[in-house]
Amino acid sequence: MSDLTVRRLDPSPDQLRYVFGGGEPLLRIEPGTVVELTTEDCFGGRVRGVDDLPSRVCDFPRLNPVTGPIHVAGAEPGDLLAVHFADIRPRRDWAVSTTFPHFGALTTTHSTAMLHPPLDEVVWMYDVDVERGVVRYRARRSEFEVDLPLDPMHGTVGVAPAAGEVVMSITPAAHGGNMDTPELRAGTTIYLPVNVEGAMLAIGDGHCRQGEGEVCGTAVEAAMETVIVVDVVKDAQLAWPRLESDEFVMSTGSVRPLEDAYRISQHDLVGWTAELLGLDPLDALQLVSQAGLAPVGNVVDTNYTMVAKLPSSILGAARPYDGLHSRLRETARSYLAER
Amino acid sequence: MSDLTVRRLDPSPDQLRYVFGGGEPLLRIEPGTVVELTTEDCFGGRVRGVDDLPSRVCDFPRLNPVTGPIHVAGAEPGDLLAVHFADIRPRRDWAVSTTFPHFGALTTTHSTAMLHPPLDEVVWMYDVDVERGVVRYRARRSEFEVDLPLDPMHGTVGVAPAAGEVVMSITPAAHGGNMDTPELRAGTTIYLPVNVEGAMLAIGDGHCRQGEGEVCGTAVEAAMETVIVVDVVKDAQLAWPRLESDEFVMSTGSVRPLEDAYRISQHDLVGWTAELLGLDPLDALQLVSQAGLAPVGNVVDTNYTMVAKLPSSILGAARPYDGLHSRLRETARSYLAER
Amino acid sequence: MSDLTVRRLDPSPDQLRYVFGGGEPLLRIEPGTVVELTTEDCFGGRVRGVDDLPSRVCDFPRLNPVTGPIHVAGAEPGDLLAVHFADIRPRRDWAVSTTFPHFGALTTTHSTAMLHPPLDEVVWMYDVDVERGVVRYRARRSEFEVDLPLDPMHGTVGVAPAAGEVVMSITPAAHGGNMDTPELRAGTTIYLPVNVEGAMLAIGDGHCRQGEGEVCGTAVEAAMETVIVVDVVKDAQLAWPRLESDEFVMSTGSVRPLEDAYRISQHDLVGWTAELLGLDPLDALQLVSQAGLAPVGNVVDTNYTMVAKLPSSILGAARPYDGLHSRLRETARSYLAER
Amino acid sequence: MSDLTVRRLDPSPDQLRYVFGGGEPLLRIEPGTVVELTTEDCFGGRVRGVDDLPSRVCDFPRLNPVTGPIHVAGAEPGDLLAVHFADIRPRRDWAVSTTFPHFGALTTTHSTAMLHPPLDEVVWMYDVDVERGVVRYRARRSEFEVDLPLDPMHGTVGVAPAAGEVVMSITPAAHGGNMDTPELRAGTTIYLPVNVEGAMLAIGDGHCRQGEGEVCGTAVEAAMETVIVVDVVKDAQLAWPRLESDEFVMSTGSVRPLEDAYRISQHDLVGWTAELLGLDPLDALQLVSQAGLAPVGNVVDTNYTMVAKLPSSILGAARPYDGLHSRLRETARSYLAER
Repeated sequence: MSDLTVRRLDPSPDQLRYVFGGGEPLLRIEPGTVVELTTEDCFGGRVRGVDDLPSRVCDFPRLNPVTGPIHVAGAEPGDLLAVHFADIRPRRDWAVSTTFPHFGALTTTHSTAMLHPPLDEVVWMYDVDVERGVVRYRARRSEFEVDLPLDPMHGTVGVAPAAGEVVMSITPAAHGGNMDTPELRAGTTIYLPVNVEGAMLAIGDGHCRQGEGEVCGTAVEAAMETVIVVDVVKDAQLAWPRLESDEFVMSTGSVRPLEDAYRISQHDLVGWTAELLGLDPLDALQLVSQAGLAPVGNVVDTNYTMVAKLPSSILGAARPYDGLHSRLRETARSYLAER
Repeated sequence: MSDLTVRRLDPSPDQLRYVFGGGEPLLRIEPGTVVELTTEDCFGGRVRGVDDLPSRVCDFPRLNPVTGPIHVAGAEPGDLLAVHFADIRPRRDWAVSTTFPHFGALTTTHSTAMLHPPLDEVVWMYDVDVERGVVRYRARRSEFEVDLPLDPMHGTVGVAPAAGEVVMSITPAAHGGNMDTPELRAGTTIYLPVNVEGAMLAIGDGHCRQGEGEVCGTAVEAAMETVIVVDVVKDAQLAWPRLESDEFVMSTGSVRPLEDAYRISQHDLVGWTAELLGLDPLDALQLVSQAGLAPVGNVVDTNYTMVAKLPSSILGAARPYDGLHSRLRETARSYLAER
Repeated sequence: MSDLTVRRLDPSPDQLRYVFGGGEPLLRIEPGTVVELTTEDCFGGRVRGVDDLPSRVCDFPRLNPVTGPIHVAGAEPGDLLAVHFADIRPRRDWAVSTTFPHFGALTTTHSTAMLHPPLDEVVWMYDVDVERGVVRYRARRSEFEVDLPLDPMHGTVGVAPAAGEVVMSITPAAHGGNMDTPELRAGTTIYLPVNVEGAMLAIGDGHCRQGEGEVCGTAVEAAMETVIVVDVVKDAQLAWPRLESDEFVMSTGSVRPLEDAYRISQHDLVGWTAELLGLDPLDALQLVSQAGLAPVGNVVDTNYTMVAKLPSSILGAARPYDGLHSRLRETARSYLAER
Repeated sequence: MSDLTVRRLDPSPDQLRYVFGGGEPLLRIEPGTVVELTTEDCFGGRVRGVDDLPSRVCDFPRLNPVTGPIHVAGAEPGDLLAVHFADIRPRRDWAVSTTFPHFGALTTTHSTAMLHPPLDEVVWMYDVDVERGVVRYRARRSEFEVDLPLDPMHGTVGVAPAAGEVVMSITPAAHGGNMDTPELRAGTTIYLPVNVEGAMLAIGDGHCRQGEGEVCGTAVEAAMETVIVVDVVKDAQLAWPRLESDEFVMSTGSVRPLEDAYRISQHDLVGWTAELLGLDPLDALQLVSQAGLAPVGNVVDTNYTMVAKLPSSILGAARPYDGLHSRLRETARSYLAER
């Protein structure tokens, strides 16, 4: 591991950002670098007890802070950025979830506008036990408690958007952003399109765990200590973020309505499968139709996110980007073992 | 098992039905009965080779035949019908999938109407190997082949709709119907609302396996030999079909757009969880938000289907309907063991 | 006019129907017949004062009664039925509108399911003044009053659906039904696909007037005295209902989500325009893009309805179905003048 | 009119912008100023004949240029900006419309992703005759021609978005942008929320006319000479753009799916009506339900736009913002008369 470059990024509160696009790099790295970074939770760490209602203690639009941007040397439009998540670890022994007025899938929102008053704003505090690998759910209005498995992930990972846009960090779109899929856990590589020189990666919104869809609007929100390995694939155009784990290749789509997010993710996975296996598009469509999975990411953000998954076992020896995921995984394992 | 009533239902081709609602019972049973039944595939068994294009050999609206209706004595509006799937077994050593003009999620349809000509109509024949537990996919336009796990399920299970409606069997809605979720496999119990005296259960559309969403419009379609155990819960109102396996309780929603199907399924699961655990609705919303899964059923039928799943382990000792699923599971196991 | 056949249809309350499809004809007519018929309001006439909350006085699913079915001799699948509305006249000097729990575009519904309690159920009584051509709106919770123009229409007009379906009268779909478009006023001809022998026409849900979208869920609901002229066009396939007035040709689409209803209606209008003017489909698309109107029908029913309108002036001398609308309009004028 | 300030803004090609938000003001004005400005067409003037396919001659993302931003002194977040359109006049005797690959409501797009190849890319050239008040449509693939009424409008009007966002000019959202509604013609005032100091108004995308929905993706696109009068209302929060003409007050909503755009626009109009008439929200809902219109804006852009209209006659003497529209209209009339 002597040849691994390792960098650390631990932003101060006033260095946190709330958008993708624009701004100056907080860190500049070369491809192949390991970055150890910290992220704050989506409330900026301000919701610390059941009386800290986010609509009072938080300051819109200073929500969902991200750590970055990280400038990756040599990344240019037309390339893709590969970010392997080596480790995601809660930084505190507590985490928090809330309802939030006009946010969530089962409430009137600013988009699905209705004449109802908002639902109650309620805060749930979770105990986080990294040793035991659980978080503790406690009902607020009765005595029920239960442990849920700890399964850390990042809701928000992205790069600067195309066309000079600057987009709130709570929006998921073609540049990544707030996709809020539990698939983005340690052991997974995300592939992102590069839209500007240096790519300008940023990461935030750690979750100790999250249900599919994030139906109430927030997950088990936590500040994280995260280790990533970053690389660049030259001349590898990508329309939407893709993920790869040891078991699955995954396409994403983030748009409304939800069926269009489904269409984008499936369309991308069909094209990717056709390319990897040398299949005709309709043959790939058939294969994905029978072997694919389609878990929801989020149905609460400004765009909804769907994930389309195909077991890598079906690919035989074919692997995306010449096996880049495996190489990054191996780098990560070595680094973590020697650390 | 001496006290188990077992009935057999093996309809002739002209006894197959294509709607839910209306018509005379093909079989009358008491609650607690085991029924061994056969179903034909969604093409009526007419697509038997790659040249049997469904638009030529099939006869709309005689598509997606169902076996039934089965009249269940004592089932009345306001009750629910429980149907446990004990066994689902392909009847042939082949199965079939196709594209179909104006059908599927990645093509212009009669609803998502566009000016494109339809995609090519293509037939894929699968080998079915029950012994090895696989089906064999073969590309049509190249040499690629791969085995996929056999995972038999029924796309279509339902009862007579409310309000005197008669609905095509390809439509999923509150009465069940063509939900096309892979969760409806052997070992699972489905709970359906009873809308008419006798419930009038019907089953069809067997799949050797299916990806989530059924993106091309059809699964690995097969005629099935299926064993169910049927029961009735009195005075147990249900808005939408629910499922239960040994590992999960599951709610469904079937409507368009897809986010409304998601809302229905999540809303039902939140209410169900609140009831099972004695939780306040917002506490149940929080728990489902963090612990729930949300796989797509179908995004191709006249309504789209979402499934909302919660691990039963979270429920502690609480189980729906006084543990009915476990009892039916046990009945099924005993019956199959002794058969 | 001596050769005009005139029939009268004035159903008793127990002859009212609540579905399209199935059932015996209430009247049998020949093509070319004038029918004078009465319809009851969508509440069955049971909401007669501000204290008559529909959820109490009405009896689901006995909502939205229709008058019919009318069997039209010679109408067969593959033909179209033309129904010209000669006159629509309120039968009472009052009309009524209400909110209804879980119904409407700005409230949680059974499909757009949310955790809010329903909005208040409120009844508004309108005075109807046919002489002055106005209805009187009165606020319930303040003193405001205003006259609105009387503009009578039928929300519900349809035939028996295809494929043996029986569909609640509140559903709009390819067979017509509860489209709830204000365009369906006197002076307009509706073209409907014939799906069964005799077509089986039924009409209901009169409105003294209605805003586009019917956002609260109900219009100014009234029992009507209506005069229609009915005709058949042989071998004239139709996918969705079309309308024609002296000024516009109009296509409709009824489905969810609303953009798919828009797509259907525009797609049909593009095809219709291409056919009428002998245009290439893309040339017709261009013409409709610049000259078409797109008012909403309803965004509250089980399917949403969009209307696509093209000024007939653009068509030059071309008119649909050999000028059938003009002929029926002339028949209607003569009949009404001589009556 | 001696006290009217008049400014002229005629940007050079390299001064055109393609986003809302960010950048330096091209012009600084005081409230009450008349601005005469020019806009380029959505293709940057590069499509000048039927062989100029936009995918070849245009340079993404340099599409849909806007003129501005205009800094309005004293406009601060929490205020609203009023922009009255006094005159919109085509600058050339031709205009142009096209299909565009992966754009439009009746074609596969990047969001409604399908496996079809794109529709043909076709250009239609229009003659513009300001004297006669018509544009000339000519079919490309047959001999048909027809005059359509000239009805100039701007597809794109907006201000800098909130939260530091920079958004492509082709996107309509809460800040205005590419709403593409034919209602934005001369004689109309648009009210926009102020999100940043100076508001930063920009205008583009002139259309000689447009059908509702802009179904093919483009209107009769033209460079315009436009006269506006700009004013500020202090402390007047606005969630979404509103319009006012002499006949109507209008709310807009721009989001996907289309029913949510409908909900936003209707919800805003209900609230606005309640405020203007001192009505309870449900009374306002009832009034809008019966008296409102709901034309589509666009169903092709990154967000879809709906308009909700209420006749001003219903408001009695009540007028928004103390009759600001009438005052601006009068200023505009005087200015144009004396010019």
